[in-house]
Amino acid sequence: MLRKLGAEFVGTFALVSAVCGGALVSYAPVEWYGGSGLLGVAFAVGLSVVCMAYAFGNISGAHFNPSVTIGLWAAKRFPTADVIPYIIAQVIGGTAAAFVFWTILAHGPGDPPGFASNGYGEHSNGGFSEIAVAITEITVTALFLIVIIGATSKKAPAALAPLAIGLMLACMHIIAIPISGASLNPARSTATAIVNGGWALEQLWMFWFAPIVGALVGAAVCWIIGTCGREETD
Amino acid sequence: MLRKLGAEFVGTFALVSAVCGGALVSYAPVEWYGGSGLLGVAFAVGLSVVCMAYAFGNISGAHFNPSVTIGLWAAKRFPTADVIPYIIAQVIGGTAAAFVFWTILAHGPGDPPGFASNGYGEHSNGGFSEIAVAITEITVTALFLIVIIGATSKKAPAALAPLAIGLMLACMHIIAIPISGASLNPARSTATAIVNGGWALEQLWMFWFAPIVGALVGAAVCWIIGTCGREETD
Amino acid sequence: MLRKLGAEFVGTFALVSAVCGGALVSYAPVEWYGGSGLLGVAFAVGLSVVCMAYAFGNISGAHFNPSVTIGLWAAKRFPTADVIPYIIAQVIGGTAAAFVFWTILAHGPGDPPGFASNGYGEHSNGGFSEIAVAITEITVTALFLIVIIGATSKKAPAALAPLAIGLMLACMHIIAIPISGASLNPARSTATAIVNGGWALEQLWMFWFAPIVGALVGAAVCWIIGTCGREETD
Amino acid sequence: MLRKLGAEFVGTFALVSAVCGGALVSYAPVEWYGGSGLLGVAFAVGLSVVCMAYAFGNISGAHFNPSVTIGLWAAKRFPTADVIPYIIAQVIGGTAAAFVFWTILAHGPGDPPGFASNGYGEHSNGGFSEIAVAITEITVTALFLIVIIGATSKKAPAALAPLAIGLMLACMHIIAIPISGASLNPARSTATAIVNGGWALEQLWMFWFAPIVGALVGAAVCWIIGTCGREETD
Repeated sequence: MLRKLGAEFVGTFALVSAVCGGALVSYAPVEWYGGSGLLGVAFAVGLSVVCMAYAFGNISGAHFNPSVTIGLWAAKRFPTADVIPYIIAQVIGGTAAAFVFWTILAHGPGDPPGFASNGYGEHSNGGFSEIAVAITEITVTALFLIVIIGATSKKAPAALAPLAIGLMLACMHIIAIPISGASLNPARSTATAIVNGGWALEQLWMFWFAPIVGALVGAAVCWIIGTCGREETD
Repeated sequence: MLRKLGAEFVGTFALVSAVCGGALVSYAPVEWYGGSGLLGVAFAVGLSVVCMAYAFGNISGAHFNPSVTIGLWAAKRFPTADVIPYIIAQVIGGTAAAFVFWTILAHGPGDPPGFASNGYGEHSNGGFSEIAVAITEITVTALFLIVIIGATSKKAPAALAPLAIGLMLACMHIIAIPISGASLNPARSTATAIVNGGWALEQLWMFWFAPIVGALVGAAVCWIIGTCGREETD
Repeated sequence: MLRKLGAEFVGTFALVSAVCGGALVSYAPVEWYGGSGLLGVAFAVGLSVVCMAYAFGNISGAHFNPSVTIGLWAAKRFPTADVIPYIIAQVIGGTAAAFVFWTILAHGPGDPPGFASNGYGEHSNGGFSEIAVAITEITVTALFLIVIIGATSKKAPAALAPLAIGLMLACMHIIAIPISGASLNPARSTATAIVNGGWALEQLWMFWFAPIVGALVGAAVCWIIGTCGREETD
Repeated sequence: MLRKLGAEFVGTFALVSAVCGGALVSYAPVEWYGGSGLLGVAFAVGLSVVCMAYAFGNISGAHFNPSVTIGLWAAKRFPTADVIPYIIAQVIGGTAAAFVFWTILAHGPGDPPGFASNGYGEHSNGGFSEIAVAITEITVTALFLIVIIGATSKKAPAALAPLAIGLMLACMHIIAIPISGASLNPARSTATAIVNGGWALEQLWMFWFAPIVGALVGAAVCWIIGTCGREETD
């Protein structure tokens, strides 16, 4: 079990490193460096999950995200007793990465705007309201879980599941970054909110609520289509 | 059968979500967010198909597109009786996604220009005429179907077919976005035309006509080369 | 044999479509569309080869390029008698695609600058001399062939070879586009030179000479390392 | 053994070619060409490793990087006697590529700013201090090694390991380019420092020290999680 929690810690550390590196270091063009923009963030986050899932898929299942853990539990693919320990390991791993990047940025050229925190209303990148952010996070997390549950079902090619899952996360980031900053992952939102403080902590409830609702919606869709459970229906 | 139609509904929902998210939310730089541009749209659409095909490939075949359904039918890979139900599920799934994004955008900072609708003449992104749009859509849909039919033939590695198919769609989008907005998919064009209304509905015939002609051309090429049918020629 | 030549015709048609679509349609920002830039061209070309190789790898070997055919012949992986027919099919397929895009562009908003032709000196995108272009084309084609010969050798995972080969082509395009326009492929250079005419035809010798020399260098390196031949050395 | 060293030479040659081509030729927009930016460099470097690892993975293990060799040695996956020969082949291969690109650039339109050298302080792209650069290089190299060791462990799908490893390198480049120029690889840093001379040679110690420390940290994490050794713990 400790090995599994270690894998979840490290994987979520990598994911939040990609969020912070992509969004705080490389996003905007500052003098002549940087400027990888929205696509850079989306690919950094997605590829970190692809690669860490190849490294740890057979150890912990490579969730790196409380809504994935809850969605797989709802799909009867994950034991109830492990849900809380996994979520704790994910939040701690993500927060550790956020503090490492806070330290790196403190030795850099200046303060970045915000700390890659997810937000709504005046804290949405594109000024999208609470309702738009909730609908978006529910939708993209549901689609993300549908891919996770389907790509790890018995009839799908197991060796390609990490690729499908990480690329889906990249794809959902392309959609959601201007709206909500793209959470889908309460551990990622908590990590950056703790460093950011203030409004990010006040709005954090949204990024536990909406991704978890989305994960449950995704699992429900998969029960209907038949990709849930250990012995999926034919 | 209902499970298959559910999978087609969900997959086309994801595809049109990627179209709307990529083209309406992230495409253009608005203040400091966004700006993922043409490559962002191409990768969003392509990756949504890669990932949903890993999730549902073994359930419905993962068409998510009436021209794919018709092309595979012409390649004798898909039963005649299922063609119409599949197309209906695809159009409904895509339209549902377009309305979700219409709702999200209604709670955003302002109206996007158009609604990611495909068009020709003055409604072509780059001012390409009806003829250029028709040739382009026929060509790229034919090439798309050639990859689908070949990559799912017996001698090709089945586990990689979803990757080949989705990346080909991304590749064809890089070519076609400035010309026609890149349809290749009548369900996707119908979904955005219904929300857009007006000229998009008037020009919609083109995006049923050209992709379906292209799909039939692609299937014909595959009959010549020998990748069609359940038992392909050696 | 006709099926193989058909596959080479179609695959090279797709590759040159990606070159023309990426470089002539989407490269530069015109009004508000386009602007996918160098990365768009590189990914379009690379992904077209990834995908067509999944479709036709088990039919023709999926060369789509005379220097690949010659390099594999030098590696003793391809029969001498088929070299010339393959090259002819590739040149015809590429030229057909160039004429299709010439037609599409003739119905577009205006003339593109040049016709995606490879050049050196004043016709190099970045003003690189004949010598720089020759060294670059030899180097990148040699590296490309080393990947092709290695990734299709017995001990490499066969199902992933198309991905490795196409992504290597994308990678080499990122390096070479500003220098030579990135040929690596005499059929691709011939196709665009025929439509372009003038200087492109005068400089075309370079884009047969350098890629073929590069392919032979790559095959020689592989003989040393031991990935050539049907029965590679252990 | 000579075949293995040849593979390491060629693979590192390709990697440093991607660094130089991506960062010196294509990075910045000069007149109308180029401008692939940070994402272009990240994908060029990452894809060169993906593809060369498919070509040579079964010959030399496809390290192309002294910190990978040292990390795999610390994970008890690589024999002590081969460490020094591998590192020498990598440094020579990388340096050869740097000289080839120095020659190409000497026949180009003008001198590039610097020579893609890694640096800190005033030579960091974004003005990050020595401490920020050290923390970054240790962190990203540790994460890189964790993916390498995990993705090549017994229970991971071997055929996908090259993809996971190269894409992780791309991902780490998106994070690190504005901070340190992204080394992770002492051979790559040495190659460009030799051509650059001056400050790059003076700061070169950092890019042996930090990546090697990171590799050892990564191996230590993998011993804890259980992916190290030939017979990993269950």
